Amino acid sequence: MARHVYSFGAGKAMGRASMREILGGKGAGLHEMTRMGVPVPPGFTISTAVCTHFYENQGTYPEGLEREVARAMARVEKIMGRRFGDGDNPLLVSVRSGARESMPGMMDTVLNLGLNDETVAGMIRRTGNARFVYDSYRRFVQMYGDVVLGMKPDKADPHDVFEALLERKKRARGVRDDTELTAEDLKGLVAQFKREVRRQRGVPFPEDPVEQLWGAIGAVFGSWNNDRAAAYRKMYGIPDDWGTAVNIQTMVFGNQGDTSGTGVAFTRDPASGERRFYGEFLMNAQGEDVVAGIRTPQPISALAGVQRTAYRELQRLGHVLEERYRDMQDMEFTIEEGRLWLLQTRTAKRTGFAAVRIAVDMADKGLITRDEALQRIEPDHLSQLLRPVFDHAAKETAQAKGRVLARGLPAGPGAATGRIVFHATDAEARRARGESVILCRVETSPEDIRGIEAAQGILTARGGMTSHAALVARQLGTVCVVGCDGLSVDYRSGEARIGKAVLKEGDWLSLDGSTGEVIQGQLRTHPSDVLRVLLDRNREASASPDYRRFAKLMRWVDEARRLGVKTNADLPEQARISRAFGAEGIGLCRTEHMFFEEQRIHSVREMILADDEEGRRKALDKLLPMQKGDFKAILGIMDKLPVTIRLLDPPLHEFLPHTSADIAALAKVFSIRPRKVREKVEALREANPMLGHRGCRLAISFPEITEMQTKAIFQAACELRKERKDPRPEVMIPLVGSLEEFRAQREIVDRVARDTMKAYGVKVRYAVGTMIELPRACLVADQIAREAQFFSFGTNDLTQTCLGLSRDDAGKFLPRYVAQGLLPEDPFVTIDEPGVGALMALGVERGRSACEDLDVGICGEHGGDPKSVVFCHDLGLDYVSCSPYRVPIAKLAAAQAALRTKGSPE
Amino acid sequence: MARHVYSFGAGKAMGRASMREILGGKGAGLHEMTRMGVPVPPGFTISTAVCTHFYENQGTYPEGLEREVARAMARVEKIMGRRFGDGDNPLLVSVRSGARESMPGMMDTVLNLGLNDETVAGMIRRTGNARFVYDSYRRFVQMYGDVVLGMKPDKADPHDVFEALLERKKRARGVRDDTELTAEDLKGLVAQFKREVRRQRGVPFPEDPVEQLWGAIGAVFGSWNNDRAAAYRKMYGIPDDWGTAVNIQTMVFGNQGDTSGTGVAFTRDPASGERRFYGEFLMNAQGEDVVAGIRTPQPISALAGVQRTAYRELQRLGHVLEERYRDMQDMEFTIEEGRLWLLQTRTAKRTGFAAVRIAVDMADKGLITRDEALQRIEPDHLSQLLRPVFDHAAKETAQAKGRVLARGLPAGPGAATGRIVFHATDAEARRARGESVILCRVETSPEDIRGIEAAQGILTARGGMTSHAALVARQLGTVCVVGCDGLSVDYRSGEARIGKAVLKEGDWLSLDGSTGEVIQGQLRTHPSDVLRVLLDRNREASASPDYRRFAKLMRWVDEARRLGVKTNADLPEQARISRAFGAEGIGLCRTEHMFFEEQRIHSVREMILADDEEGRRKALDKLLPMQKGDFKAILGIMDKLPVTIRLLDPPLHEFLPHTSADIAALAKVFSIRPRKVREKVEALREANPMLGHRGCRLAISFPEITEMQTKAIFQAACELRKERKDPRPEVMIPLVGSLEEFRAQREIVDRVARDTMKAYGVKVRYAVGTMIELPRACLVADQIAREAQFFSFGTNDLTQTCLGLSRDDAGKFLPRYVAQGLLPEDPFVTIDEPGVGALMALGVERGRSACEDLDVGICGEHGGDPKSVVFCHDLGLDYVSCSPYRVPIAKLAAAQAALRTKGSPE
Repeated sequence: MARHVYSFGAGKAMGRASMREILGGKGAGLHEMTRMGVPVPPGFTISTAVCTHFYENQGTYPEGLEREVARAMARVEKIMGRRFGDGDNPLLVSVRSGARESMPGMMDTVLNLGLNDETVAGMIRRTGNARFVYDSYRRFVQMYGDVVLGMKPDKADPHDVFEALLERKKRARGVRDDTELTAEDLKGLVAQFKREVRRQRGVPFPEDPVEQLWGAIGAVFGSWNNDRAAAYRKMYGIPDDWGTAVNIQTMVFGNQGDTSGTGVAFTRDPASGERRFYGEFLMNAQGEDVVAGIRTPQPISALAGVQRTAYRELQRLGHVLEERYRDMQDMEFTIEEGRLWLLQTRTAKRTGFAAVRIAVDMADKGLITRDEALQRIEPDHLSQLLRPVFDHAAKETAQAKGRVLARGLPAGPGAATGRIVFHATDAEARRARGESVILCRVETSPEDIRGIEAAQGILTARGGMTSHAALVARQLGTVCVVGCDGLSVDYRSGEARIGKAVLKEGDWLSLDGSTGEVIQGQLRTHPSDVLRVLLDRNREASASPDYRRFAKLMRWVDEARRLGVKTNADLPEQARISRAFGAEGIGLCRTEHMFFEEQRIHSVREMILADDEEGRRKALDKLLPMQKGDFKAILGIMDKLPVTIRLLDPPLHEFLPHTSADIAALAKVFSIRPRKVREKVEALREANPMLGHRGCRLAISFPEITEMQTKAIFQAACELRKERKDPRPEVMIPLVGSLEEFRAQREIVDRVARDTMKAYGVKVRYAVGTMIELPRACLVADQIAREAQFFSFGTNDLTQTCLGLSRDDAGKFLPRYVAQGLLPEDPFVTIDEPGVGALMALGVERGRSACEDLDVGICGEHGGDPKSVVFCHDLGLDYVSCSPYRVPIAKLAAAQAALRTKGSPE
Repeated sequence: MARHVYSFGAGKAMGRASMREILGGKGAGLHEMTRMGVPVPPGFTISTAVCTHFYENQGTYPEGLEREVARAMARVEKIMGRRFGDGDNPLLVSVRSGARESMPGMMDTVLNLGLNDETVAGMIRRTGNARFVYDSYRRFVQMYGDVVLGMKPDKADPHDVFEALLERKKRARGVRDDTELTAEDLKGLVAQFKREVRRQRGVPFPEDPVEQLWGAIGAVFGSWNNDRAAAYRKMYGIPDDWGTAVNIQTMVFGNQGDTSGTGVAFTRDPASGERRFYGEFLMNAQGEDVVAGIRTPQPISALAGVQRTAYRELQRLGHVLEERYRDMQDMEFTIEEGRLWLLQTRTAKRTGFAAVRIAVDMADKGLITRDEALQRIEPDHLSQLLRPVFDHAAKETAQAKGRVLARGLPAGPGAATGRIVFHATDAEARRARGESVILCRVETSPEDIRGIEAAQGILTARGGMTSHAALVARQLGTVCVVGCDGLSVDYRSGEARIGKAVLKEGDWLSLDGSTGEVIQGQLRTHPSDVLRVLLDRNREASASPDYRRFAKLMRWVDEARRLGVKTNADLPEQARISRAFGAEGIGLCRTEHMFFEEQRIHSVREMILADDEEGRRKALDKLLPMQKGDFKAILGIMDKLPVTIRLLDPPLHEFLPHTSADIAALAKVFSIRPRKVREKVEALREANPMLGHRGCRLAISFPEITEMQTKAIFQAACELRKERKDPRPEVMIPLVGSLEEFRAQREIVDRVARDTMKAYGVKVRYAVGTMIELPRACLVADQIAREAQFFSFGTNDLTQTCLGLSRDDAGKFLPRYVAQGLLPEDPFVTIDEPGVGALMALGVERGRSACEDLDVGICGEHGGDPKSVVFCHDLGLDYVSCSPYRVPIAKLAAAQAALRTKGSPE
């Protein structure tokens, strides 16, 4: 029969650090520490296999478990010289959860278990401290009532019933602090608590310690599946079938008087990563007092003045444990009457700044390898280093003053503060006056692009993490909060409401794009160090330690990864930033984004309104020099690097106005009747524009658009060649579904390229390829690859078509889908591997079967999502392309994928 | 070196019937007839390989071809005792195209070649008939000028220049008929023609017969790629690389006087299939006179009175050739001074009625096998037997009077006549008064369903062959013409315009849904014989010969096919019809179509407008008995046969009104503010409804809908069980993309089914499966098949998502796509095999890998398309499901597919 219970204590343990799967993280740590001689209160661990059994067998336990638990308890009793339930010298225990991955605060805990009216007397006799014992008893009954017996708040008072009684008692005694209550007060409270339990649950509070123990064990296993824990697992991708272990451990008491205390210590600063002993503690308190924030804890350094020996020992143990685990540790400790006990050690959570600093420092010191350093950092964390940040104190004040109005989806990380406006044009106007602006909309559309560019931050009421606003914001590196429920915008009156707060145009508003917080008023921000240096041409001179570490890390990353990383950039400024971020080319340059500038949109509309090819060509001739200028700037900045330019993609109606007023204005500009404009708008309207007349379908209908765009690209490239530069244009045909479509477009591109190069008398290295964004394109990839020089997966559209899921409409049900597990993740954030991923695999396999060295990349938003980058690496793609600010993130993810393939230690 | 030229004549021929690929159909026929001793003017055939060479080598010929042609010509000269270009006894030839498949009238022909000023004199001497010779010369110069020299009409006169000169001459002579012009008149015309050639082309008319010959050969090869021919090939699926052969053959003259003539004869009546000698002829005429319709030909029976011997011989040859080719023949003949010559024989085109009659008759007579009989009939042709038909004479009169206003797409075959209305409600109202109605709309929507049901015919300005109107019409068997360019509808004034014709509500209009013709006024129609008998319960009593043949054919079909054929039917009446048509169950019963009836739509809207689940349940409770009633009727009619019921599919906004007036009216009905309705409409609006909140996504959001529908199904089934019937419901979950979605819905269905059966105390055999209509579903089919009992491919939506092509919007560019060969066929008509077909193959393979005996079918519109049926057979599907009227067609296609697999002769 397999072992279900693992004992530890007095320097011996049945488990060890490597047994996380069976013992959970906390359990494995307790066993390992015990082995290392670290002072750990003795106890035992019930394995995660019992949890699995519990769920697979209607809440029952494996045979023999009770016997094993009893034996393990006997071992603890022997070590401690106390007996569980003994009236004279009782052993008290804690019962705690502990899963393979830490899920802090998600599951239940019961402390001081083993107390009853009999053992209480023994405890008082032993400690001579009746107040402490009744305080412990009060806490136990309260915790057990909440956790095991499921006590519910009164209807009259939504707070915890026990807290309510406690408050009443304090008011009756005229005291503010729990510590001011006397032993008698607490004894009375215990009696009140028990009466309340009997009233609400209909049964007396259990006095038998063994019954208490099994109640607590069942509650901890049960808490694995509470809503919070399930949601947490969903969020962090922890499998439901891992289960939790249960740790039963001798109680030590930080609340046994002024030489007792409890706290948390970190071996480094989890915010900055600096190598200094860090943490906080409370004397005469139990653990939950630190967490609950009722009393304000003291910084750990102050412990030296109170309990010097314990402090020194704690510092020493921190070193030992960090060396042992080769990573920053987060330790829970209790001092019981001057004696130090460690209750837990685990790898500490940290900010992105700290993650980078610790990894680089440890690798530099030789404590870990470079490969390990790279695997220690969550790719997404790198974005923290690049975003402007709120001044910490200013934000705390705002929180304290209740100025955090709402929390939306954190779509574009960073901090932004500015005056609120409701129209793109107002954003531009205020920006022109030098003001900082927050553009607040129900949702944004391509027409708002100039306003979005002008704004410091974007706030929308609707839309998800990949809504238009979110996409553009990440592309531009703009702070963005979307899908802000409770925000209503009234464009007519020019005001927005969140709850009771009314925001008028011009009011100050701040957005934290890393947390989704929407904060009333102006908050101080400053750019991150790393960003400042990256964008500064004189890097060496102004290099900061943060930047130096970042740069060093990125060098290691570049050595480790196989996958190329390009960027999506539509404007010269973006191209410049992306080079600074280390992009190896532009994987997607969307030409239509250039169409929305004022002078251009006029010609674009003239083209659309033209009745025949001649009229269209006239308008296109006006666009040609402007497009050429853009391409020349971008190709020049990206000198020697490939620039993939996608030909016109969106349906034409996106370029036309839709309101009566705008239509009338446009008609006036062109001196035509509004009816004609309206008819055109009407004729271009589509039932499903996503599946409509767009991409190369437009170009098949109006080949003159392809001609103009190709001419602009090659004129720009030829001029650069004449200036002795080395432009590398790659022309990408969008929305191709068949070889025939591709061929028809490629013929135009090749012809115009040939003619243009001939006219300039120079040669330009170029390629013609296609975006693979339709299921059909994946299925006939072997045919298309016969003539296409590269593939770039457009996974945004491929996700929409593969899943039959409109990105603009999915907001109504997609969150519920992900929450209910109907889809593993938001497929617009992380590539849906069984569906979209399978299509991509077909596309790669079939494409390469026809053309072995076909260059294959991805340019959807997924290119910046670490999990998707790993998938692309595994699929054998040549590169991913993502927004400039996500280039370092994608690179790190690519490096991690390469290391994982290499088989490096995790 | 391969042979390029094949001679025939005087009972000997180098080719034979089996050499169609090389000699073309016409050529192979000429060679075979020659071998059989049929009198064929001697000649030779230049093979199709030369055509291929011609196109692959910039219009040049293979080496040695000239020599081969000269040798072959010499052989003909020897047989005929005349010389090509000889001034005394000239040989004249015809130069004709002849592809593998007949492409009547698409390519060019030159007759009387070899005439010039010198040979004309010799001909006159030989025949003593100057008028005939100059008539031939005039025809030759005209034909050669048009075909070879590319003469264009004058700008002033859009007619053929030569025809214009001929007309002028006739006016000058004061005559009406060509035959009234004298030899001198014609001689003068020839001179005029030649002058006109020189004026327009700048070169003299070629006098050298050899130059004439090569000019004509080049023109015939060139005509393979003229626009008409290319379009024809596209339409009939003839590959571009087959090429045409060229037949050069001794001229015989039907215009050599009153004992000469020409005509066309059929061995059976091509309209009815009746076994009688059929055709028409003209004395003293050449072939094109029959075709051109300038003189009215006489029925072939009259030939007996004019040329008895030739007539008898022709009849005899008809028998011989029909026996030889084992199919009805269509023969071209010429009588030259009493002697009969056959110029061509080919398998005759025929109507559906004739095709069935001939195939069945021949099989009954043992001339062909039953399998061959089945392969002789185009499946689509069967629909002719089932549609009402216009009275022939009435339609001819309408055509003559110019009352055919336009020609749209023939979306629903048959003949319909009625009073025009522009609103569905008006259609219902007039129908209720017993009037026949044609519903005329810009396009139709689901709200129009009742009106469409009420109408005899549907006419729309927009939309293609698979638009809403077309789909519903075919489903209902309603006559339908869609995409009628030039039709404009003004709902406000209640009138439509086509060209100059104004149609007001109540005016009579007729639609020919087989041709797309829109005809002003009322035209007589009557139901087809077959249909009348099929729907008549007392079949035996009233059986017609047409019906008997149809029924016999369908028995053979049922014996031959492997693939099951079910039907798509939403209403009891459709179910009844489909059983008559031999459907083996209902493959798709769309529950939402039941929602549009007046009483129901009210409850549906109440459900949508409800604020919470309680409100929705209240409204659903009202719908339950109505849905139950429908299901009971349908399951009862289909007793013992499976009925696949799809749960609610369309997005909810389809059930709400959209105009202000309708919204206001609805608000009044529910006594709520219009603003609330408008907000709901607004909230439900989607950017891409096709990819939005529909199918099982709705049911995931509102599981109470699934509960109600399932309850209705099983209450109905249980009641039928109690009545000792055997209902076979199969519940189909729409738009499933993952196993988890399917499972969530299946759990509800199983629970409700269990509860309902328990309440009634009976068992119902049922299955739960899913519609496979998303690419993702095909890709994860192995997962879904673990729990789904059947798959039904929804190829309409699968086509939209696989190709990223909105059916509602594709009209703007899809026709161009098909015409330009960017897509092989309209993917909404015939399954797109490389894309959608590949996904289906994946779905079948993966699905069956998880569940070997998974029942797999198709219920998209493609289920009634013969080519797609063959594809489904090859894919190993279990059944196809199509609209009731297409059941016989799908069955025949399935039989043909099975026979082809079996390796039967084509």
